[in-house]
Amino acid sequence: MDSEGRSQRHYQVCLIGSGGVGTIASVVLAKSGRAHLTCVLRSKYSYVSQHGWDVDSVDHGKLSGWKPHRIVRSAADAATDENGDQVTYDYVVVCTKQLPNLNPVVGMIAPVMTPGRTTVVMIQNGMGIEEEIIKAWPGNVVMSSVSHIGSSIQEPNMVVQVGKDVSKMGPHLHTGVDDSTSIEKAREFVDMYLSGGASVCEMVEDIQVARWEKLLWNGTFNTVCALMRMDVGELQRSKGRESMLVPMMWEIWNISKAAGHPMPESIVQWMAYRLPDDCDYRPSMLLDLENGRPMELEVILGNALKKAQELGVNTPHMTTVHKLLKLEEWRCQERRSL
Amino acid sequence: MDSEGRSQRHYQVCLIGSGGVGTIASVVLAKSGRAHLTCVLRSKYSYVSQHGWDVDSVDHGKLSGWKPHRIVRSAADAATDENGDQVTYDYVVVCTKQLPNLNPVVGMIAPVMTPGRTTVVMIQNGMGIEEEIIKAWPGNVVMSSVSHIGSSIQEPNMVVQVGKDVSKMGPHLHTGVDDSTSIEKAREFVDMYLSGGASVCEMVEDIQVARWEKLLWNGTFNTVCALMRMDVGELQRSKGRESMLVPMMWEIWNISKAAGHPMPESIVQWMAYRLPDDCDYRPSMLLDLENGRPMELEVILGNALKKAQELGVNTPHMTTVHKLLKLEEWRCQERRSL
Repeated sequence: MDSEGRSQRHYQVCLIGSGGVGTIASVVLAKSGRAHLTCVLRSKYSYVSQHGWDVDSVDHGKLSGWKPHRIVRSAADAATDENGDQVTYDYVVVCTKQLPNLNPVVGMIAPVMTPGRTTVVMIQNGMGIEEEIIKAWPGNVVMSSVSHIGSSIQEPNMVVQVGKDVSKMGPHLHTGVDDSTSIEKAREFVDMYLSGGASVCEMVEDIQVARWEKLLWNGTFNTVCALMRMDVGELQRSKGRESMLVPMMWEIWNISKAAGHPMPESIVQWMAYRLPDDCDYRPSMLLDLENGRPMELEVILGNALKKAQELGVNTPHMTTVHKLLKLEEWRCQERRSL
Repeated sequence: MDSEGRSQRHYQVCLIGSGGVGTIASVVLAKSGRAHLTCVLRSKYSYVSQHGWDVDSVDHGKLSGWKPHRIVRSAADAATDENGDQVTYDYVVVCTKQLPNLNPVVGMIAPVMTPGRTTVVMIQNGMGIEEEIIKAWPGNVVMSSVSHIGSSIQEPNMVVQVGKDVSKMGPHLHTGVDDSTSIEKAREFVDMYLSGGASVCEMVEDIQVARWEKLLWNGTFNTVCALMRMDVGELQRSKGRESMLVPMMWEIWNISKAAGHPMPESIVQWMAYRLPDDCDYRPSMLLDLENGRPMELEVILGNALKKAQELGVNTPHMTTVHKLLKLEEWRCQERRSL
């Protein structure tokens, strides 16, 4: 029992995807002392299973050769334990890039899902990403974390976290599960995450609002910086903030309102003007483009635009930027296939 | 008298701007035998006044060291003849790039304009470019040539014309001049131009329709190829033609219709699908961007968008592409000012 009288339950947790976000999440979950943590690493399996991670973190300090309880090469390997017995996971935490066309989450997590039991935690970008999961496991709790963290991997096994791990978490309520159950499972995960030393982890009632808020950034700075090959400061100094980003933010604001998840009006001004004009930050989609990697275009703009069309919201800037980034995507694919 | 009984009048002609288009126009006018041709060359004055042009042309064959009657360094120098006497020009032919913010045509041609006398011939891209001229010289005839020609300069003095000189010409009728006078002056210029051996030079009643037709190309392929750094074939293979260009063409089609200069509907399909998917043509605006030169953005998209706004025509794709190219323009200016 903890000081508030809650039982300190332990959970079987499987975490998939160890980029900057996922690796710090795995440190948090392991530090909580409440999770038996199995991490699925793909490209980094060989190196990290041998050497562990070297972590340099604003939240957790320096760790050398750090490992979770178990490291496996695939979700299929995570499905059974070292003795070959089936593992029933309480939580599957998905921290991969959201690429529904290349690597859909449903197929990725299927081996570690127990219907009616496993809660899916999506620490991922994008809109509407929970829908496929709920469709595939209609009796399972699905929750999201909308995370703001500055963290990245330096090859081969260094995790550098410069920005604090601040997140909002909450369940996606759906008809297949009692709301009280969804809320309870989400609350337990938040408690575990907080006790692992995350900077801020807030449980919110309407996680969709948090997703739309994050889209104000991801759908605007992230996409237009990528398209224009500009860093944040360049885009601001070019007046692209006024001509493009703010109009796009209002388009997003209008969709979220029409979808029943209104944001405060003041958030547009805040989101547009919070960074200085000499900020040389290069958002993730720009880095993806520059490195010929797939972008999270569909979950960031595509799904929001589907919602806009459904609801009859006018989105001229977003629509055009989405179409232009599809051309970039085509070019990346062409180059990869050479 | 020629075979049709018209007098073979001779004209004082001043031609400004000797890029690929202007140099071939000067060859045509000189060959007509009806023009005393003064060419204003700026960057190329020293070399060409000494060595002339070397021309390799599908219309005119090979010419070596070719020169017009007179080459001068500025419009001010063109204003007086070799004896210092004022020249009264019948035609001023403007073949420069259209950069209203950097190099407005009114200031450029003022020294060679005689009010009430000189006809201005604009062999230039863009919409609404005649308006400033008419405002400055309300008693003068203003006409346009909408030219399709494949011609370029190779340093220092080689003109290579690979595509035939096909143009439509016609007057911009306005209240300061009798329509019959405008039509007569335009007709005389077309006659002179045809007798100089241009492939096709058609006199049209509504030159605005020809300008809108050309904008179907310049406002779409030219702008999106530049923005995406793609050649024509890449843009087509990426499906950008279907997602971006055809919708933009219909936006242009709608503006032209609202402006009272309707184009046939079939022209959109023709313009969008006339080139093969392996076409590696790099339109002028893309070349300008790649070489850090100013683009003709305002006369191509800016003026059309002003017209659209005036007339209440919806232009989501054009508006966004224009805004994004303004960011490119900002970046070019930044780099030039370094």
